[in-house]
Formats: sequence, C-alpha cells, structure tokens
Amino acid sequence: MKVNGTPYRTVWMEGSVVRMIDQRWLPHRFTIVDLDTVEATATAIRDMWVRGAGAIGATAGYAMAQATLLGSGEGWRDQVAAAAEQIRATRPTAQNLFFAVERVVAVIDRSADLKAAQAAASAEAQAIADEDAHACEQIGEAGAPLIADGARVLTHCNAGWLAFVDWGSALSPVYKAARAGRRVSVVADETRPRGQGAMLTAWELAGEGIGHAVIADNAAALLMERGEIDLVIVGSDRIAANGDVANKIGTLEKAICARHFNIPFYVAAPTSTIDWACPTGGEIPIEERDPDEVLTTWGTDAAGEIVRVRTANPTSTARNPAFDVTPAALIGGIITERGVVKPGELARVRR
Amino acid sequence: MKVNGTPYRTVWMEGSVVRMIDQRWLPHRFTIVDLDTVEATATAIRDMWVRGAGAIGATAGYAMAQATLLGSGEGWRDQVAAAAEQIRATRPTAQNLFFAVERVVAVIDRSADLKAAQAAASAEAQAIADEDAHACEQIGEAGAPLIADGARVLTHCNAGWLAFVDWGSALSPVYKAARAGRRVSVVADETRPRGQGAMLTAWELAGEGIGHAVIADNAAALLMERGEIDLVIVGSDRIAANGDVANKIGTLEKAICARHFNIPFYVAAPTSTIDWACPTGGEIPIEERDPDEVLTTWGTDAAGEIVRVRTANPTSTARNPAFDVTPAALIGGIITERGVVKPGELARVRR
Repeated sequence: MKVNGTPYRTVWMEGSVVRMIDQRWLPHRFTIVDLDTVEATATAIRDMWVRGAGAIGATAGYAMAQATLLGSGEGWRDQVAAAAEQIRATRPTAQNLFFAVERVVAVIDRSADLKAAQAAASAEAQAIADEDAHACEQIGEAGAPLIADGARVLTHCNAGWLAFVDWGSALSPVYKAARAGRRVSVVADETRPRGQGAMLTAWELAGEGIGHAVIADNAAALLMERGEIDLVIVGSDRIAANGDVANKIGTLEKAICARHFNIPFYVAAPTSTIDWACPTGGEIPIEERDPDEVLTTWGTDAAGEIVRVRTANPTSTARNPAFDVTPAALIGGIITERGVVKPGELARVRR
Repeated sequence: MKVNGTPYRTVWMEGSVVRMIDQRWLPHRFTIVDLDTVEATATAIRDMWVRGAGAIGATAGYAMAQATLLGSGEGWRDQVAAAAEQIRATRPTAQNLFFAVERVVAVIDRSADLKAAQAAASAEAQAIADEDAHACEQIGEAGAPLIADGARVLTHCNAGWLAFVDWGSALSPVYKAARAGRRVSVVADETRPRGQGAMLTAWELAGEGIGHAVIADNAAALLMERGEIDLVIVGSDRIAANGDVANKIGTLEKAICARHFNIPFYVAAPTSTIDWACPTGGEIPIEERDPDEVLTTWGTDAAGEIVRVRTANPTSTARNPAFDVTPAALIGGIITERGVVKPGELARVRR
C-alpha cells in the first residue's frame, strides 16, 4: 500500500538482502532497513521491527532463502539448518513463522545442490509473501461489498497491511471500497496500552488518503449510540473452530457494545488464522504482558525526540492482559480470502 | 484522606489564605499551594489546579470569604462584587461554583458591616466545604454495605476525594468498607484520554493503602468475563431526573459490559449532582474537547521531568467527546448521601 504516494510492502527481498519497513518507530519515523545477514533478519523478527502474523511469516521465509543465498562450501546444509534454528528461536509462539521456515526448509531438502537450493528457496519464500498479499487482497474483495458508499467503519488495533505483507485484513475491505470509488471513513480506536490504532492504523489510513479520526478507546460506545458507526471490522490473532475469536484486548468490549446498539460486527482474517485443533475460545491462552505497557506510553516530544513517559501513579502497578476472546455469538461474519461466512459455518472455508 | 500517612482535604483556608493540593502535576508531584489573593484563587480554579464539582464549589466559597477578609475601606462591597464576578468567570459551566458564590454573597449582603461580613462569609464558606465532605462521607456509609469482604471493585475516571473536599463519591464506599476492616481491592480504568484513573484514582488508593491495579480501558470486559469484578462504581457529572447519568467518556461502555456479564453497576454522587430541571439524558449536552488530549499524553521521563508526547500519527486528527450518558436502565442503583435508590426512584432523595 502507499506511503507518501509510493507503494510498499512491509517486507521484500533484493538479491540476498531482506528489506523491510522498520515498524518500531512508526508513525514517527518511516525507515527502510537492509538486513544483510540471517543474524540481522533474526534480530529484526525477535525485536519486533516487524510484527503481525503474515509479515513475520514472510520475513521468516525470506530469512531462509537468505541463508541459502549466503551459504557456501561443503557445509552449506549445516549452515541452513543453523539458520532455521536461529529463526525458529526468535518468536516461539508465532505459528506463521514455523510454517514458513518448514516450507522453505522442505524445498531446500529436496534440492540436489546449493545452487538448486538457492533458486528453490528464493521462489518458495517469494511465494509465501505473495500468497499472503494475495489472500489479504481477496479478503478485501470479499469484504468490500459490506461497505456502502458513505460508510463509517470502526476498527480496533492494527489489522492493516503493516501486519501482513500487503493489504491487511480488517482494513483491506476499506482499501478496496475506497479504490472502487466509494466514500468510506474510519474511526480508529487508540488501542491502549500499545496504541496500535493511533499509531499504525492512523498512519496507514493517512498514507492511503482515507478519511479517519482517532478516538480514545472509551468513546466507541458513544459514537455507536449516536449512529456514527455503520459497522465494525477487526482482525484476529487466532480463531477457534467454533468461531470464537481471540484478538487485541478491547475487541470483546467493542463486540458487546456493537451488539447492544445492533451494529454489524465483523472479523477479517486469512483462513490460516483458524486453529482447527482449538475447539472453542476457552482453550485459547491469554498472554499477560509487562505492566509497564499500561503504566507508560511513548511518543515524540516538542523537539521531535522519541521519549517514553510514565503516565500512571509511580507507586501503582497494572494488569495487562494482551488479548480477549469474542464469542462467536457476537460476530456477524468472518471475512476470509474464501468469502464471508458466519462464525458457526467456518467449515465452509476449510480446505 | 491520607497522603503519605497524613490526612488532607483538597482545599482549606488558613486566615485569609486559601490552601489547596495543586492537582496539575499529580501523581508525579504532590504540592500544596498558598493562594494569597482572590486573583490567585481564581487562577487556580480557571487553570484547573483544582477540579471536580465539590472541590471547585468549596474553593469558590473560600474565594468569596477571602474577598471579605482582604476587603478594606468604604468600597469593600464593590470589592466583594468584583471578586464574585471574577470567580464566576473562571469556569462558566461549573454549577457548584455558582451555587457557592451565591451562598456566600447572600450572607455578605445580609451583613451590616465588613467585620460582620468577614465572620459570616468565613463561616458560610467553611459550611460549604464541610457539607461537601459530610455528604461524601455519607455516600460512603450508604454504599459500603454493597462491598462485601474480598470484593473487587471496578471504577472509571476519578470520583475520589480529589474531586471533592474529602472522601469522594465512587471511592467513598471503598474507603468506608476498608476502614471497617473489610478486604477490598480496586481495578482502576486508566481513563484515556486524560488518564484520571491511572493518575488520580491510583494515587488516592495508594495513599489510603487500598490494593489496586490500573488497567487499560480495553481490559474491563475481559476481567468481568473472568469473574474478577464483583461490582462497578462510578461517579457522575450530572444526573437527569429520570436517572440517566452523564459521566466521563467510557462509562457507557462499562455499563453495557457490566449488564452483559450481570455485574452490578452503581453510580455514586451527592444529590446536588441531580439536575431536576433536566428530564432525561438526551437533554444533556456532551462537551467535545481538544483533539490533542487524544493525540498526546504526558508523564515523567527517565529523568523525572514532566513531558508531553505526541502518541498518535502526526498527520491524523481525533474526535474527543468528553462525556457519555448511561441510561437509567443499565444502572443498578444510585448511591447518594441520603441512601441508595434505583435510578427510577430518584424523587425519594429529593428535598
């Protein structure tokens, strides 16, 4: 999608160099970083220069291709195996990362020599990235008909292209509707504690020229009550087989409020987000993160310097559950690359 | 209530000096300021060194007493009239401020001379402050029975003693229950955009030694779902005659979620908060405040300096409604200094 008028993906490869948008300082600094070694790419994944399931998976795939392109000598298969270990160790709970490493390792294992492995791994890594971008674009096409001309969409957190390779999930239907010429505006929840809505979603929407406003997370119900929200679209970190949806903390509140005001509530996610082995949301563990995320925040000061400040009372602590689970009963539809389905009918998009 | 073991009120008078806790830099700086002139006291009200209906009213009363104590010569009645004008102009929408000025002006008008006016005004201003503190203490006594041993209370924004002269509204039952020896803990919503929960409520609770945790506003529904919240108590800025309640933005979301999870939702407020001339919440105007409150936040940096930072995308704007209205149907009870009543039975506490 566009940044200052120029189209970008979150991550791509040029020669043996992995290039990505360094998301650590967005929206305050837009920087492209060049990762020349597998070690550098591993650091970028581990330290969250890139985040979001799709983008992490693509980066991991590129890292494995990079390992072959930088491989040399008789020991190249050992070098690749070591690189795979290194990448797997970066984000131990990121399923897409493991899938991507496995896919590229499989084509390497089938290759007769280093040169063949380089070609096969590069093609497979590119396919992983392209499939992610394509699936997200299809989510946009499937979801765009839900967005009427003049629609006002509420979203929570960032499920835009920054979390994938391109297009995104929750924002993809918005981008598709806008490119089809329909007027659409977005209300972006700030999404405390990490502020992905105010920081990343707002930045994405500005880049694409979509009219939008940030709100405090507290203001969503009031806007719903006033009739200023036509539909809600959020992303998902994990979908249980019964259609329960784990997503950023606060999603459950928005879903409850949307139901209260009879506003359609949609989840947009690639089918790779569905965990068929997980029967219900009750089985999804909720990560409790560092209380400092709640007690502090960061941004730019008057001089443009990036500063973290302690906002909360210095002698108090915090609870910081990172996700919640929205029950299928509160979800009007799940927008996937294979179409929009009711949460109770997920099997229709299973392959 | 206590600060570092010492009892305080938010505002009080010593001789002709109005003294108050400067709330501008709480929780990061605890400072008592001495206001030697009516002009200084007016500035403190206007620039929100003190905030909250009860505390503003008491300060306005003291300011009028101060005007008589500093009055001199034949023109003292003109000086008092000018002071009344000055105080009224500080916060044009603060009803308690007008009531307090009128009450003190009335006793001054009945006084034969400056000396009599000084005694009468001082007594009346002190009565206004004492009545506020007493009403809040009675709210605590009325509400404390709702808080069982071991109860976990969710609150939103700051409706503690900092908003009044002492005790507070929503937190007063918590303080009373704790002083009665019952174990009680509080979950404090951060309350973006201005963060009064993380800053002021957390600071108050720490001072009184009440166990508490700050949460992102987004986390309330999850904690309710898990059974970690036994009841919700919030304050109110204005209560319509039918029991609809205007309060800090986000209160409506908490009320909707509490109803969804069948958790009791209470509003605590002195009866002076009830606007009998306002039939329903639909007639309460909602102030839209500066978008910068949403786009920025402030706190202390690593060196302990107070810094405001821009958190949101620099090219985005925000919507910032400051209040919402919770319909009477979502409120289990209103805790007043005259007892706990159903929102539909407010007339029972009318005098």
